Amino acid sequence: MIHVGIIGYGYWGPNLVRNFFSQQECNIKTVADSRPNRLEDLKKLYPSIKAVQDADEIINDPEIDAVIIATPINSHFSLAQKALTNGKHVLIEKPMASSVMECEKLIELSLQKNLVLMVDHTFLYTGAVEKIKEIIDNDILGNIKYLDSTRINLGLFQPDINVLWDLAPHDLSILRYLYNATPYSINATGISHTDNGVENIAYMTINYTSGFIAHLNCSWSSPVKVRMMMIGGDKKMIVYNDVEPTEKIKVYDTAYQLKTDEDKKQILVDYRVGDIYVPKINNKEALASVASDFITSIRESKLPRSSYIIGLDIIKMLEAAEKSIKNNGVEVKLS
Amino acid sequence: MIHVGIIGYGYWGPNLVRNFFSQQECNIKTVADSRPNRLEDLKKLYPSIKAVQDADEIINDPEIDAVIIATPINSHFSLAQKALTNGKHVLIEKPMASSVMECEKLIELSLQKNLVLMVDHTFLYTGAVEKIKEIIDNDILGNIKYLDSTRINLGLFQPDINVLWDLAPHDLSILRYLYNATPYSINATGISHTDNGVENIAYMTINYTSGFIAHLNCSWSSPVKVRMMMIGGDKKMIVYNDVEPTEKIKVYDTAYQLKTDEDKKQILVDYRVGDIYVPKINNKEALASVASDFITSIRESKLPRSSYIIGLDIIKMLEAAEKSIKNNGVEVKLS
Amino acid sequence: MIHVGIIGYGYWGPNLVRNFFSQQECNIKTVADSRPNRLEDLKKLYPSIKAVQDADEIINDPEIDAVIIATPINSHFSLAQKALTNGKHVLIEKPMASSVMECEKLIELSLQKNLVLMVDHTFLYTGAVEKIKEIIDNDILGNIKYLDSTRINLGLFQPDINVLWDLAPHDLSILRYLYNATPYSINATGISHTDNGVENIAYMTINYTSGFIAHLNCSWSSPVKVRMMMIGGDKKMIVYNDVEPTEKIKVYDTAYQLKTDEDKKQILVDYRVGDIYVPKINNKEALASVASDFITSIRESKLPRSSYIIGLDIIKMLEAAEKSIKNNGVEVKLS
Amino acid sequence: MIHVGIIGYGYWGPNLVRNFFSQQECNIKTVADSRPNRLEDLKKLYPSIKAVQDADEIINDPEIDAVIIATPINSHFSLAQKALTNGKHVLIEKPMASSVMECEKLIELSLQKNLVLMVDHTFLYTGAVEKIKEIIDNDILGNIKYLDSTRINLGLFQPDINVLWDLAPHDLSILRYLYNATPYSINATGISHTDNGVENIAYMTINYTSGFIAHLNCSWSSPVKVRMMMIGGDKKMIVYNDVEPTEKIKVYDTAYQLKTDEDKKQILVDYRVGDIYVPKINNKEALASVASDFITSIRESKLPRSSYIIGLDIIKMLEAAEKSIKNNGVEVKLS
Repeated sequence: MIHVGIIGYGYWGPNLVRNFFSQQECNIKTVADSRPNRLEDLKKLYPSIKAVQDADEIINDPEIDAVIIATPINSHFSLAQKALTNGKHVLIEKPMASSVMECEKLIELSLQKNLVLMVDHTFLYTGAVEKIKEIIDNDILGNIKYLDSTRINLGLFQPDINVLWDLAPHDLSILRYLYNATPYSINATGISHTDNGVENIAYMTINYTSGFIAHLNCSWSSPVKVRMMMIGGDKKMIVYNDVEPTEKIKVYDTAYQLKTDEDKKQILVDYRVGDIYVPKINNKEALASVASDFITSIRESKLPRSSYIIGLDIIKMLEAAEKSIKNNGVEVKLS
Repeated sequence: MIHVGIIGYGYWGPNLVRNFFSQQECNIKTVADSRPNRLEDLKKLYPSIKAVQDADEIINDPEIDAVIIATPINSHFSLAQKALTNGKHVLIEKPMASSVMECEKLIELSLQKNLVLMVDHTFLYTGAVEKIKEIIDNDILGNIKYLDSTRINLGLFQPDINVLWDLAPHDLSILRYLYNATPYSINATGISHTDNGVENIAYMTINYTSGFIAHLNCSWSSPVKVRMMMIGGDKKMIVYNDVEPTEKIKVYDTAYQLKTDEDKKQILVDYRVGDIYVPKINNKEALASVASDFITSIRESKLPRSSYIIGLDIIKMLEAAEKSIKNNGVEVKLS
Repeated sequence: MIHVGIIGYGYWGPNLVRNFFSQQECNIKTVADSRPNRLEDLKKLYPSIKAVQDADEIINDPEIDAVIIATPINSHFSLAQKALTNGKHVLIEKPMASSVMECEKLIELSLQKNLVLMVDHTFLYTGAVEKIKEIIDNDILGNIKYLDSTRINLGLFQPDINVLWDLAPHDLSILRYLYNATPYSINATGISHTDNGVENIAYMTINYTSGFIAHLNCSWSSPVKVRMMMIGGDKKMIVYNDVEPTEKIKVYDTAYQLKTDEDKKQILVDYRVGDIYVPKINNKEALASVASDFITSIRESKLPRSSYIIGLDIIKMLEAAEKSIKNNGVEVKLS
Repeated sequence: MIHVGIIGYGYWGPNLVRNFFSQQECNIKTVADSRPNRLEDLKKLYPSIKAVQDADEIINDPEIDAVIIATPINSHFSLAQKALTNGKHVLIEKPMASSVMECEKLIELSLQKNLVLMVDHTFLYTGAVEKIKEIIDNDILGNIKYLDSTRINLGLFQPDINVLWDLAPHDLSILRYLYNATPYSINATGISHTDNGVENIAYMTINYTSGFIAHLNCSWSSPVKVRMMMIGGDKKMIVYNDVEPTEKIKVYDTAYQLKTDEDKKQILVDYRVGDIYVPKINNKEALASVASDFITSIRESKLPRSSYIIGLDIIKMLEAAEKSIKNNGVEVKLS
């Protein structure tokens, strides 16, 4: 039995509690939140769970094996550092931390202590992303040439982190999981419609040396909710529409392929437009799989799917994007 | 009666012929195309029109008042220059020419000769764009904060011009018409999946000093055809979906508005999500209005809606975008 | 404080428990279900509620004021009869009972005992139906001429009741609520693709003396889920698409109106196609309003929105439809 | 070379002229229409075609081999009878004639004279219907259990024929082509919102002895245009949405199948929900194939796809539907 404590019972916390509650071989001992009314809500539904205001009661509890951190991003590092130092396995809400340096410190600590350090990039565990991964791994798409994602809605303007830090982690985690390579550089542009200079609309191009390209369009200022991702291969292409209730993924037997010709000056492209295939998707709750992967990774000392490696790469990309956006879109190379 | 000649009977030529044919006070005297089979097609449908292979038969014909140039972009300048020199009014297919310098020479010539110089940005005459313009002019949207456009499909890879030169003129003309200001700078990124370095996917951010921002996503490599534009104001927002057969424009009573507060550190945003309104749109053929505007502008010596001013600004933006894309996305200021 | 007991913890029971649990001035004392595993599920989530296998423990409990019956339809009558006899207010899952005679007996009993007798036609409490009701009551549609509803999906074939008894109560309750009149007659056709003669596809026309007509298309055998209702007035028309997440209701400024002319032989119809208006809808949970209406009706001795009057009329229509379908679609008049 | 004459240059006539004009081995000699302005329009586009006001100039012209009748339905019989009598092959716009008796007389005459008698059920030649036919013929769907079609829009109220005679021929021709059997009986209901008793909304159930069922929903009174057909087999099911520009057909790997069990009282149904397949469809112009089939049938003395057999069966169904609708929905058996 693995005993866990959950820090933060805000928007996402109840989902974490519900899903870890129904995990086998797992016991939620304590939930911490500084707001008394949040704890009242918790106690009504889960009278068996200990509710505390001070996160240290979790971090210092010798009976607790693992800590889940679901607080605002600026507290991720300090809480995770203390938990790891105290020998706890750690699952952090996305994004992992506020900077690459913070992430690297946490990773080093977890390796020293031989503890699981996982980031909750929930999307990697959805039926849709699992199906796309399977399609790509089975070489249905051929060589992947681009990924293009639009993630926009009327969103809560956040005072301290821009729209990329808020929304792009979803796209970047999917990108990083599906296309297993570290990008070469980032360009980003955007605008702040508030006085504090925090961008509410931003665009991000992710460049690779391979000829693959990714682009994200993120906005808190759209009247409609769009969650649309396209992935183009030289054999087939996928359109992944996450707001569609059932037909989320469409695989298009559509491609353009360069023909080899003697005269290099001429462009010969083979076009193909064919049938479309809409695979059935497992519509399980992704967070249950996150919980299961975390518990299993602790028990088997294995790397979870949503590992610190993916978590770190996302922070690298976000940091580079922010640097680019503040320098008028200049290309920022990833170290 | 205004006598016109049309140079180029390829993809767009038949539409031009059909629409100018049914214009009052207008007579198509001659159509030129170097390909005999194209002329055969013309003669079958329009036995009354003179079909010639050599464009000079039009340009040098003293009976012809106006010339319509529907040839590939690289011949726009020389044909238009000759026609203007010979005293003909000129309508050029979009984009106006291959460079800002070419455009400026044509403009100067037309001003000297007091001739109409118009560019066929057909979209400006569609019922949808006219309705959006009307909504904006009536201050329904309030201050416009952004325009975001996606124009992607499986398109013919062109050997000499990139996807921005091919597709973006549509978006840029609409942008320029709806938001009557010259941008400050351009950032563009993209990729070429062919050996010749011509981008088949490209992204373009258009920056303004006012805090307004525009962004275009153009691709020849999408399995689906998307024509989606969003225009956000601080009172209402528009989603314009051009592939929708009837409900092309949706006006969302949705907005975010900055609240003034004493403490400038805090961000107070007022959100509003309300009803949606789908105005009925005139589904006339836009090209008929283009033809009519050209003929009327000649007769009344007036500036057409799709004027050389708009045409030139679009070339300025395209030129800057190309410069940016070739310099890793660096910001390029418009002179 | 009103003490309630809930009989039946199957598919709908957990929703009832959750919603009555959060009602003010209401206490769920006991839940009954004959299946031990269902009671186990209940106790895990609600340790404070008494879980019993025998419904009589609820019906005979003098502390319980009101009973909610969420069992299969064939037990509705006997359970409701016993509960009313014992002086309990009763809320029954739709449809009210298996026959008009059963309904009439329950109604008589409730009137004698001065008890609330309500049927859970949840749809009447959705934001969408409330908005449509408001639009109609404000005479936006004008005279209503037709209602047409399609409610199809791949549904569980039920062994004892046909698809109309299963799905049509939703449409019939909305119809009865929006168009406050008793129909004149019913025609129904359908087919059974199983050996037991229970129709899995059925069509129902509901005739009125006023010239209004309603039609339902119900099926357990569709590959897609459709929930589409149209309501046509002589001023405007509504399309209500319940599978649409946000834009459920569209009001079309479209109408056809008969013009008066001297010569009665000629048909003069005025057509109008105009704008579309998509009102914002309250997306509350409807069942919370059902619970609230039940509790309030008990406290204030008032008739709930989803009254026995509506409940009875629906059974009248279903009974007539079944008679029609078994007699090759012959018109069956409602007594 | 086959010389044809076309009678009627109204809504559909120009499409017929355009398509027969581009047929090989076919020459349109004459077009007749009593309205001078229609003939003016014709002459502008096709100066080579003889334009006459009197249909007899076509019917009595010995040089004309085949006559196409595109007039209102009430003149179909007399024109076709005269043309056949004069030895002309005949293509009639749908529906074939006003009654079964008229159809039978025309068929008899065509057989006596050994002439082609074809009805223009254009839908049978669309890429979509051809693809569905191919799917069914390849036994992809298994045993077909139902066809359900909705064909509604804001349509022109016709003074003499009801909405079924106007719209249902499309569905009935597809039904008859895809499911090659004569139905057993018809039920129909509907309503007239005008004073002349002509139904503008109508519903039609088509019963077969095999356990297959078809249902049509036709209306001139809908604010939206719907063209939706479902075809359910016991292996797979098709949804055919004709207003969708590209993805018209979706094949669902969805089925319900009765399991055999000893105890006949129990219903055991196997459900399956799987992938969806969207076949690419040939988006040719269907009317070109109609023209080609007519010409080929004349040259090869073969039965066209859209034969008089299908044409007659449709009139049988329409006649029965009208009888049913006027008798309160009573079942009308097809002789």
